[in-house]
Amino acid sequence: MRLSELSERSGVSTATIKYYLREGLLPPGERVSATQAEYGESHLRRLRLVRALLQVGRLPVATAREVLGHVDDDSLGRTIRLGAALWSLPHGPDPDEEAPETAAARAEVDRLLDRLGWSTAREIGSLSPVHRALVSSLATLIRLGYPCESDFLAEQARLMHQVAVHDLDMMETYPSGSEQVEMAVASAVLYEPLLASLRRLAQEEESARRYGI
Amino acid sequence: MRLSELSERSGVSTATIKYYLREGLLPPGERVSATQAEYGESHLRRLRLVRALLQVGRLPVATAREVLGHVDDDSLGRTIRLGAALWSLPHGPDPDEEAPETAAARAEVDRLLDRLGWSTAREIGSLSPVHRALVSSLATLIRLGYPCESDFLAEQARLMHQVAVHDLDMMETYPSGSEQVEMAVASAVLYEPLLASLRRLAQEEESARRYGI
Repeated sequence: MRLSELSERSGVSTATIKYYLREGLLPPGERVSATQAEYGESHLRRLRLVRALLQVGRLPVATAREVLGHVDDDSLGRTIRLGAALWSLPHGPDPDEEAPETAAARAEVDRLLDRLGWSTAREIGSLSPVHRALVSSLATLIRLGYPCESDFLAEQARLMHQVAVHDLDMMETYPSGSEQVEMAVASAVLYEPLLASLRRLAQEEESARRYGI
Repeated sequence: MRLSELSERSGVSTATIKYYLREGLLPPGERVSATQAEYGESHLRRLRLVRALLQVGRLPVATAREVLGHVDDDSLGRTIRLGAALWSLPHGPDPDEEAPETAAARAEVDRLLDRLGWSTAREIGSLSPVHRALVSSLATLIRLGYPCESDFLAEQARLMHQVAVHDLDMMETYPSGSEQVEMAVASAVLYEPLLASLRRLAQEEESARRYGI
């Protein structure tokens, strides 16, 4: 399809598409003449992901470019490719290594991962920004004096594992590796607010069931 | 305890405590002389929550004051008090009523709530900012062309309900109604990033199990 059709089908203006092309967020189309290029379904898909990253995830353009670079790197195995793409998304803050609670939080996360049998997460440890964000959140709870008992954490982690199983099952309904990694990235950005809303709505519902209105 | 001890035990400077007192975020202590007041354990707890709202949740002072006003309003029943406190926290954006996807998203949320049997959430509907944020997230998915099949949503919602059951069980380990509502508010602010990290870590773990490293 031509640029005008890509614009129409995606709902993104031609000026914005040209901007994404210049910024390297969208790969160039196949040139068919000096002034025209041909775009395909993969461009439509990519536009959708770029909008998710920029408009919903509010990622800076440079970060979005880095994420997409990993999505496109099919020299990597699927887990590493997925990991690299997800790791380049914004995360919570890194733990404050000066703070006394950080060591306690890290030990608690290690115990948790051992207990859950999440051996890869345990092995990769602080190399993963996700692991670091988890340690940081837990250190905040400890510092403020809020409870984070192991049983409670393990139970919530098991439920999040079931959520992740559904996430990956959904991802696997997509045919190609590229599409699956694209979907995983979109899912991290788009489904997180959805899950947070579902949790809060479930709290309201459960509260009404327990205590009436 | 005196202000100096409250400062020492909470780790919050006396200047900051005085600022919280002036802003009405912390109730005044019991005056024991013209220049001194006496503070109790409830002040320590409240300081902890104020820091969670301001420092972790990054709430504006006026919003924090509104949230705390609902937490302290024991004229309300527990569900309403909890609801009012949680509703005054920041939420995702309201749905764009001009957008064609919003009606489809709202119908999908209604179907979902019916299917789950969440009758209170269904009844309250768009009165709840949580419900509105959910409709808005779903409308974004539809607009960008990402899937949100009913089966997938229902499965994730059921898991979030289990998360909420654990949340409320934990809340109920606190003795008084006030402490329980305080804990629910802290939980909405502090445990959301923790759950998001657990989900992403679970995705990494599950991906390594399915596809190797």
